[in-house]
Amino acid sequence: MSSHYPSYLLENAVNEFAKLPGIGRKTALRLVLHLLRQDDVSLENFASAIATLKHDVKYCSCCHNISDSEVCAICSDKSRDASTVCVVENIKEVMAIENTVQFRGLYHVLGGIISPIDGIGPSDIEISSLVDRVKSGEVTEVILALSATMEGDTTNFYIYRKLQPYNVKVSIIARGVAIGDEIEYADEITLGRSIINRTPFDESYKTVSK
Amino acid sequence: MSSHYPSYLLENAVNEFAKLPGIGRKTALRLVLHLLRQDDVSLENFASAIATLKHDVKYCSCCHNISDSEVCAICSDKSRDASTVCVVENIKEVMAIENTVQFRGLYHVLGGIISPIDGIGPSDIEISSLVDRVKSGEVTEVILALSATMEGDTTNFYIYRKLQPYNVKVSIIARGVAIGDEIEYADEITLGRSIINRTPFDESYKTVSK
Repeated sequence: MSSHYPSYLLENAVNEFAKLPGIGRKTALRLVLHLLRQDDVSLENFASAIATLKHDVKYCSCCHNISDSEVCAICSDKSRDASTVCVVENIKEVMAIENTVQFRGLYHVLGGIISPIDGIGPSDIEISSLVDRVKSGEVTEVILALSATMEGDTTNFYIYRKLQPYNVKVSIIARGVAIGDEIEYADEITLGRSIINRTPFDESYKTVSK
Repeated sequence: MSSHYPSYLLENAVNEFAKLPGIGRKTALRLVLHLLRQDDVSLENFASAIATLKHDVKYCSCCHNISDSEVCAICSDKSRDASTVCVVENIKEVMAIENTVQFRGLYHVLGGIISPIDGIGPSDIEISSLVDRVKSGEVTEVILALSATMEGDTTNFYIYRKLQPYNVKVSIIARGVAIGDEIEYADEITLGRSIINRTPFDESYKTVSK
């Protein structure tokens, strides 16, 4: 089915929206026509919010979380426990764990997960900077909070091996989250409990059947 | 549940996306993080597509359809039948009917539908300009192609009454589209047939039970 767009500008805007994940062409058209009905100021705010974000946003030099400053609000919060670092795949997981209000340590955002199928290896994500943080000595425990998928397991094992030479406890969040589920969509209660009930890395994998 | 955004810029962009119809905060966050992963050029294209659309888009002086020029491509197409005008609520319905390839006349986009509950009266939509088009004499048939809802029926009756003084046939698309359905979501076969099987306005309402 070809669509007859009455305007090239309209078609162009629809094409741009249809590139977004989960947005089809009908939804894209609906969104664009909605924006077109807004006044100039609203539209300007919308367009500039995106441009400004991309242009001005920073990534924390310590944990690689998204941030408005050189060091993020969490890393620079002196009331937090800098000896405990929770390793997560992405920004969304930091937000999900912060929402549980169960964790008062710091984070380390990998910016991805080891996935040979997608061509993502250990050097493509922030693992060496995690090792550097541990080497520096302040960290006494690293909590692995990756998704309970094959890629998550692979990444867990890789990080565990890399950290073994150092005097640091490596634990993993309790698998209260069902195997196969994504961290991002877990409910707060389950996710919060899984942080409290974290188990030492060795024991954890003993109880999980292959 | 409050969300802990690590960055004000991020939160601002999420807020802007969450204003769009059908986009919740989780989806908005997913879309914004997707955009953030794009390179500068892609992001620039996205932002400018919207801004340019709003700034440069025109509305056809004849049929009020969205257009890149003063008179739209359909109205200025000499191969089309200028004596038949199809009245639709919005741009999306023009596109839906064009996709059926069953109609070779022109359109008239009302830009809305009479809906007292939403405070939209006859003067808020392009009815008087439709009457002017009919008055000018070239139009011999007006086809009403509004949604089969109460608001659509109300608007149909209002337009019919307004056009009665003039020597013009007023017809209505066949109700192949189920009562209560929106034109926008009808499949092409049904919608195309409903244009071919249009019936004179009087007869149409005789066969519809109140």
